[in-house]
Amino acid sequence: MPSRNPCLANLKAGYLFPEVAKRRQEYAAAHPEAKIISLGVGNTTEPLLPHIDAGLVEGARRLGTVEGYSGYQDEGLLSLREKISKVFYGGQFGAEEIFISDGAKCDIGRLQLLFGAGTPVAVQNPSYPVYVDGSVLVGSAGGWEGSGYKGITYLPCTTDNGYFPDISLLPPGCLIYFCSPNNPTGAVADKKQLQALVEAAGKNGSIIVFDAAYSSYIRDSALPKTIFEIEGSKTCAIEVNSFSKSAGFTGVRLGWNVVPKELKYSNGESVRADWARISGTVFNGASNIAQAGGMAALDDEGLKEIRALSDFYLGNAKLIKSALQKLGITCVGGDNSPYIWACFPGKDSWEIFTEILEKCQIITTPGSGFGSAGQSFIRFSAFGHSTDVEEACKRLEQIKI
Amino acid sequence: MPSRNPCLANLKAGYLFPEVAKRRQEYAAAHPEAKIISLGVGNTTEPLLPHIDAGLVEGARRLGTVEGYSGYQDEGLLSLREKISKVFYGGQFGAEEIFISDGAKCDIGRLQLLFGAGTPVAVQNPSYPVYVDGSVLVGSAGGWEGSGYKGITYLPCTTDNGYFPDISLLPPGCLIYFCSPNNPTGAVADKKQLQALVEAAGKNGSIIVFDAAYSSYIRDSALPKTIFEIEGSKTCAIEVNSFSKSAGFTGVRLGWNVVPKELKYSNGESVRADWARISGTVFNGASNIAQAGGMAALDDEGLKEIRALSDFYLGNAKLIKSALQKLGITCVGGDNSPYIWACFPGKDSWEIFTEILEKCQIITTPGSGFGSAGQSFIRFSAFGHSTDVEEACKRLEQIKI
Repeated sequence: MPSRNPCLANLKAGYLFPEVAKRRQEYAAAHPEAKIISLGVGNTTEPLLPHIDAGLVEGARRLGTVEGYSGYQDEGLLSLREKISKVFYGGQFGAEEIFISDGAKCDIGRLQLLFGAGTPVAVQNPSYPVYVDGSVLVGSAGGWEGSGYKGITYLPCTTDNGYFPDISLLPPGCLIYFCSPNNPTGAVADKKQLQALVEAAGKNGSIIVFDAAYSSYIRDSALPKTIFEIEGSKTCAIEVNSFSKSAGFTGVRLGWNVVPKELKYSNGESVRADWARISGTVFNGASNIAQAGGMAALDDEGLKEIRALSDFYLGNAKLIKSALQKLGITCVGGDNSPYIWACFPGKDSWEIFTEILEKCQIITTPGSGFGSAGQSFIRFSAFGHSTDVEEACKRLEQIKI
Repeated sequence: MPSRNPCLANLKAGYLFPEVAKRRQEYAAAHPEAKIISLGVGNTTEPLLPHIDAGLVEGARRLGTVEGYSGYQDEGLLSLREKISKVFYGGQFGAEEIFISDGAKCDIGRLQLLFGAGTPVAVQNPSYPVYVDGSVLVGSAGGWEGSGYKGITYLPCTTDNGYFPDISLLPPGCLIYFCSPNNPTGAVADKKQLQALVEAAGKNGSIIVFDAAYSSYIRDSALPKTIFEIEGSKTCAIEVNSFSKSAGFTGVRLGWNVVPKELKYSNGESVRADWARISGTVFNGASNIAQAGGMAALDDEGLKEIRALSDFYLGNAKLIKSALQKLGITCVGGDNSPYIWACFPGKDSWEIFTEILEKCQIITTPGSGFGSAGQSFIRFSAFGHSTDVEEACKRLEQIKI
């Protein structure tokens, strides 16, 4: 039979969230009476708001009509691409630089096909697992060595550096995945920090894959919502973004990415042209119904709903953060992000995970699952119904620090 | 800057369908008065039928309710996976062997991650371009050499062999992409032929990726609709399928694949377990709205609509085939498939494409775009409105053979 892709053998154990789900199931099976509350995976819980939902319903209804039916839309609706450019980037991109996708995670998986397997990869430590696991799958990273994969540069983001990495550690000619507002720490890089990142990438010939999936949670108007607010970014950055956490589309599946026409490989060829080719070859576009919903989400009424929905989850974040702080637990995030990053000095993340599950029947995400610098941390997600979050905050009093 | 993936440089010119689209645009720009009819890309044109569309509308509406809202569904709705097993496979697969996806093309792109870049690849010649282009992208195939990519075994499917390849040419331990009903030839392999294929794969340690995306067009009840009708297939085959051409979901995006638990790599490890890991890492599931539509498509009323919709396109196919045959053009397919494969001996496919475009203002697909054995052929797609297909059949009389 054909051989197993050797890169698969390099991947450590299970993907983080399935592992969390497995432990939840095991606990539930052993404690059928437990009313488990999840503050674990960043999965939206609230119904879509009426205007955006009406956009989806109408998108589905139109497919049953001769004049409204549509088939393949590989590169995405022109009107949606133009609207994204206008709403998020002040119209600075042409539609051909914006690609509609079925979400940021899937995009990140495909983006890795642009670069050679020998391309060095750098990530924030901790970081969202798909950057690293995806790099291992395509062979840009090798086997696990002690605390990380061979060939990946991990840039620690810790209390000491205010969760912004030491960018002098950036290897030359690398692909750096950078997420702000950050998953899992909730930290948001400011303009000066991103300017330094862009300058470093420009100088040492690196490309930034900027994950802005949580930008709709930024309330501090001084904080940049996109890497393209930063001068010089068009020649060194790709941005991925999504309707998942803003409009509540985690299950609907809609995202986008921006590949500026100015972005080139080391040989001077256009990255954008290759990306169009890859997208056309192994992808067939996002659902036309989801795209109709995306159009509704980006008009005035839809943008108000996005604001209201993220305000709701930010309200949850405030409650959780305050409950943790009352217990004397140090935590960051939660102000411009739906994630709270809580520190339990000297403890192991999976042990804390288990303790919180057993004492409070609350599912969280162990920080060490996001990288070695996440050890002793727990990520609390603010996605949940009000009543569950309020109940969870009460139960958290059971934790001994 | 990071280097370009060297595999990208191996890819020849543009992907077939964008190239066809480009030529159409150029012709339209030069002839603004022309009423171009497309019998080119296999893109569905008819509105969704009422029951299936109502399933999608209801799926979208429910997302606006507390009790109906849903988020991530990575591995797909359990009820949909169970229904697919029941409707298409007589319940012989567990839900864990069925993976819901956003379509066959995207699945084929991701499936290549299962196997090492050194895995030999075999394809029918002609074949759907993504098998070959996707293999080049992940490095399973090398540069272009004369009439094909290095490392790919092309199995000619010609008039002489009744469009079923000489399977003695199958390299050992290979991945063979096999599509039946075939795109582009419209040929359907019979039970005896598939039995021979499965036996050959079993004997020489190969894995068949069976693309059954057009199975709903099979009207001859003796013809197999899935590779899993064939004894011995579970240890040597993966099947990909889709709602695109059956329910008219080309734009809705919904498909599935079956990876039997019996399927192993050369080292004895489970392919299914890796596929679950890959799917969970670089994919986030099909749209929940599309899945609600899929559920509707597979109940009694939905299956009737699928039958009616494919009957309609088969009616078009009959008209086109008959019009071509009246002109003395030899063609196959169109009986159990929406594609007609027409032969123009001694001519170049792109020349015939241009001749048909200029004389009839009809877009087709040049057979040579599907592989060297497609030279001198044209693929006619039966996807189109009745009035357009009838008009196209009249215009075809302008072709000189």
